[in-house]
Amino acid sequence: MAKTEAAHLTAITPTREDDYAEWYQQVIKAADLAENSPVRGCMVIKPWGYALWENIQRDLDARFKATGHRNAYFPLFIPKSFLEKEAAHVEGFAKECAVVTHHRLVQDAKGALVVDPEAELDEPLIVRPTSETIIGEMFAKWVQSYRDLPLLINQWCNVVRWELRTRMFLRTSEFLWQEGHTAHETEQEAHEETRRMLDVYQEFVESCLAMPVLRGRKTDSERFPGADETYAIEAMMQDRKALQAGTSHFLGQNFARASGIRFQSRAGGEELAWTTSWGASTRLIGGLIMTHGDDDGLVLPPRVAAAHLVILPILRADETRQRVLDYVAGIAAELRGLSYHGVPLGVEVDQRDVRGGQKKWDWVKKGIPIRLEVGPRDVERGAVSFARRDRAVGAAEEVPAAGLGERVLRVLDEMQAGLLARALEFRARHMRPIGDAAELAAFFTPRNPEKPEIHGGFAVSPWCGDAACENRVKESLKVTIRCIPIDEVPDGGFDRCVVCGGPRRETVVFAKNY
Amino acid sequence: MAKTEAAHLTAITPTREDDYAEWYQQVIKAADLAENSPVRGCMVIKPWGYALWENIQRDLDARFKATGHRNAYFPLFIPKSFLEKEAAHVEGFAKECAVVTHHRLVQDAKGALVVDPEAELDEPLIVRPTSETIIGEMFAKWVQSYRDLPLLINQWCNVVRWELRTRMFLRTSEFLWQEGHTAHETEQEAHEETRRMLDVYQEFVESCLAMPVLRGRKTDSERFPGADETYAIEAMMQDRKALQAGTSHFLGQNFARASGIRFQSRAGGEELAWTTSWGASTRLIGGLIMTHGDDDGLVLPPRVAAAHLVILPILRADETRQRVLDYVAGIAAELRGLSYHGVPLGVEVDQRDVRGGQKKWDWVKKGIPIRLEVGPRDVERGAVSFARRDRAVGAAEEVPAAGLGERVLRVLDEMQAGLLARALEFRARHMRPIGDAAELAAFFTPRNPEKPEIHGGFAVSPWCGDAACENRVKESLKVTIRCIPIDEVPDGGFDRCVVCGGPRRETVVFAKNY
Repeated sequence: MAKTEAAHLTAITPTREDDYAEWYQQVIKAADLAENSPVRGCMVIKPWGYALWENIQRDLDARFKATGHRNAYFPLFIPKSFLEKEAAHVEGFAKECAVVTHHRLVQDAKGALVVDPEAELDEPLIVRPTSETIIGEMFAKWVQSYRDLPLLINQWCNVVRWELRTRMFLRTSEFLWQEGHTAHETEQEAHEETRRMLDVYQEFVESCLAMPVLRGRKTDSERFPGADETYAIEAMMQDRKALQAGTSHFLGQNFARASGIRFQSRAGGEELAWTTSWGASTRLIGGLIMTHGDDDGLVLPPRVAAAHLVILPILRADETRQRVLDYVAGIAAELRGLSYHGVPLGVEVDQRDVRGGQKKWDWVKKGIPIRLEVGPRDVERGAVSFARRDRAVGAAEEVPAAGLGERVLRVLDEMQAGLLARALEFRARHMRPIGDAAELAAFFTPRNPEKPEIHGGFAVSPWCGDAACENRVKESLKVTIRCIPIDEVPDGGFDRCVVCGGPRRETVVFAKNY
Repeated sequence: MAKTEAAHLTAITPTREDDYAEWYQQVIKAADLAENSPVRGCMVIKPWGYALWENIQRDLDARFKATGHRNAYFPLFIPKSFLEKEAAHVEGFAKECAVVTHHRLVQDAKGALVVDPEAELDEPLIVRPTSETIIGEMFAKWVQSYRDLPLLINQWCNVVRWELRTRMFLRTSEFLWQEGHTAHETEQEAHEETRRMLDVYQEFVESCLAMPVLRGRKTDSERFPGADETYAIEAMMQDRKALQAGTSHFLGQNFARASGIRFQSRAGGEELAWTTSWGASTRLIGGLIMTHGDDDGLVLPPRVAAAHLVILPILRADETRQRVLDYVAGIAAELRGLSYHGVPLGVEVDQRDVRGGQKKWDWVKKGIPIRLEVGPRDVERGAVSFARRDRAVGAAEEVPAAGLGERVLRVLDEMQAGLLARALEFRARHMRPIGDAAELAAFFTPRNPEKPEIHGGFAVSPWCGDAACENRVKESLKVTIRCIPIDEVPDGGFDRCVVCGGPRRETVVFAKNY
C-alpha cells in the first residue's frame, strides 16, 4: 500500500497524484478487469471487466431498439478494393490495417509450420477497422426505393486498428464495439439521426455510467475519415484530460456514392441516399475507471456494476459457523429476489477461506457498491454491518436486517446520483473560459514538471475557425480542440480568437486527450 | 409458386422434395434471414436471422451462468507458435487458417493501394479457428493452486475456418459461436463438466429450438483435434441427414500440457489441470430451418422466434380505416404487455402499403408463429381472424378479442410442443436398427437416383470398433458414424458388426451428414 500525504494507506500503489497512468494500470489489475495478452496489442477482458461490457451492451442495445434500430452481422473481412472506394476513408485507415494474405499453413521440409505460399489470396482481406464500406455494399442491394428507407442497422462486433502504443481499454489493436449504420431519404433525416444517436449516447453515459459528457461537433481536422460532420461526447477524466466516449457521424452522400446506395425517389427519379454511422466501444470501461476510481481501486456506478453487493460472512471454527451461513443464505436469497432498474440485484457471497481483511479489500478494489459483513454478533442482533464504496472503507454502520432490501435499493440510487454529482462538480472545477493565449498556455502547463499529467483541464475559448490556429495550439501545448460544444459551457463572452486575436467564429473546448 | 403433386401452390420453389438443397437457400431468402456477401465464404446475417441468434444467445447464456460459468473475451489473433503447441490440434486446423501477415497498406508508385512489404509481422497471426491455445496460455497464468479451480469460462465471438464450399449458416468461413473453456482439478470433474454441458445443449435445443437430438460420443476419427473424447448432439434434418448441433470435448491433459496449466495440488505437489471445451454456433439456425421449415417457408418455434405474432390490419380508404387502426393499436398494446417464457411478447404490426395477400404470405414465409388479420367487420364484432403457422395457410378462425392474450400464450405453447412432437415423430419414422450390410447399403441408397438426398435416415447398427469398418461404410456409402449414442435408441439387439460380422463392441448411429 502507498502512503499519501495525509499519511493514510491506500490500496492502490501509486496513487492518482503520484502517477496517474500507472495508477490506471494498477486499478485494472487490482480489480481483475483485464490483462495484456501475449498477442501484440490485444488484451484479455476478464469476467469482472466483461460483465461491465455485458451491462453496457444490454442497456445501449435496448436504447437502440427503442429508437427503431435492428441488429445484424456483417463479415469480419473487407476486400482491399472496398476500402479504396472512399478516398478520405482509406487514407484514414490504411496505415493501421491487419491484412490477411493467405488461407493455409503447411509444414516445410524441416517440419516447421509456415505460411503456404500457394495459398495466397487473389485479393488481400482487411480485418475490419470499421464497416462503412462493406455495409454500404449491402445497403446498395437492399435499398431500391424510398419505401426501403430509413434503413436502421446496428452491429455488435470486434474491430482491429493496428496500434503500436497500447493502453488497456483505451487503445488496443482489437477492441469490441457497436457500430450503427443508417441510410435515409433526405439530408435532414440523416442529420436528425446523427444527433439522435449522439443524444442516446449522452443519456446512456450520464444515467448509467454516471459520466458527465459534453456533446459537440468536431473540427475538420478531427473528423472521421469520410464524414461530412462528426459529433462526439467528451468526458473529463480525473487527470483532467478528455476522453472521447462515443461518436456519431453524418456521412452526407460520400459513402452512398462510393457504394452506390441509390433509390427511386418519391418524385420518381434516382437519388443517392444520405447515411450516418455511430459507435461506442469498450473504451467506455476505461472512461468509467478514470472517472470514478480512487486510490483504493475501482468504484462502480450501481447501474453498470458487475454485481451490486457482496456479503462477507465472518466464519469462526465453532458452533456459530452454521448459524452465520444460514443467516447469510437467507439474506442473499431475499436480496436476489429484488430487481434494480430492471435487472435482478447482483449478490455475491464470498466464502473463500482467506483472512477477513484481505477479503474486504479485494471487494473494495473491485469497486462493488455495497459490502455487508455478517458475524455471529450480527446474527444475534438481527443486523448486518453495511458499508458503501463511496464512503471511507472503515465507515461501516450497523443496520437491521429487516428492511435491508429497501435500504439497498435506496442506497444504490443515492450512490449512482452521488457519483454523477461528484463528477459534474469535478468537471465544473476544472473547466473555465479562457480568452487569452498566455493564460491558455499557463492553463495547460503542469505546475509540477515531474507530474505532466496534472494541468488545468478544459479551456472554453473563442476560435477564429482557422486550422492554422488550431494547429498552433496542438503543436505548442499538445492540446486539441475536443469539440465545438452543443451543450452550454461557461464561455466568458470573448469575441477574439484565443490564438490570433481574429474575430471569433466558434466557441470551442480545448483539452489534452486520450 | 411451385405446384406440388397434390396440385396446391407452395410459397417456396422448389419444394423440399423437388430439390432440398435449393429449397433451403430459398427459405433463407424468402424469410430474409441472411445472404451471401461479396467477401468469399462470408455471409451477412440480416435482422430477422440475427434476432434468432440473439434469442439463442440469451437463453444459452443464462444456462451457462446458471451452471457457474462466466463470460470473458480473448484475442481474435493467435500467434502461429501457439497453434503449433498441440500436434493433433495444428494438424486439424492448419489447412483452413486465415493468416494475417502484414499490418499496413501503402500506395505504390502508381497510386494503387498495396500491402506494405515493410509492414510484415515477425510472426504471422492466425485468425482464431477456435481458442484452446490462446485461452490455455492465459489459464496457465491464472491457475496456481487447486483453490483457483475449477475455472469456468465462456466466450461469445466470431471464428474463421477457411472453407471452399460454403452453405449459409451450415458452413461459412466466418461464423459466430460460443466456446466454453474450463480447467479442473481432477479427471472426473472434467468428465462431469463435459457431460454437463452436453446436457445443457440438449435441453436447450429440445426445449427452445424444438429440435430433438441424440447425445453421443464420437469415434476416434470424428474427434476434435486434440481432444481425448468428443461428445455431440446430433439432429435429424428433413432430408434425413444428421446435423451436429453442438459439441463438448474432454481434452484430458493435452492442452494443459501444451500450455503449461499446472497447479499446486491439495497434497502439495504440482499437477497438470484437466480441461474441457464446448461450442455451439450459428449453425443451430441452419438446423432450425431444416427441422421445421416447410414448402411455404420458415417455421419458427415460439421460444426462439424473432417475433411471436403479427397483426395485419385490413385498411380501406374510407371511414373504417381509423377505427381499424385504433382497434389494432389497442390489441397490440395489450399483447405487448404480456410475457412469454420470461421475454416480452414480440408483436409486429404490418401497416405497409402492399396488397393483403402479399403481406400475409411475407409473414408466412418468415415463419412468424401467429398472424392476426383485422378488418372493419372484425372491429364491429369485437373479434380477430387468428391463424397459426403450423396449420394450413387458409385455416384462420375468428376468435373474440376478449381473452386474446391468454389464447396467444396457450397457442404458442401448443405450437412449441407440437413442433417438437412432429420432429420426434419424423425421426422415429426414419431411424431404425439395421444389422445387415446389404440392408445398410439399401437404407442409404436413394430410391430415386435423381433425388440423392432422399434416403433412409439414421441406421442404428452394431460395430466392432474397428476404424477399417467405419471407413468402409464411409467410402462406399458416404455415411459416417455420427455417434455412439448415450440416449436410448432402437438397437435391434444385434451382436455382430454390421460391416465385418465381428463381435459388436458398440451400437452406433450411421447417417449422412452436414
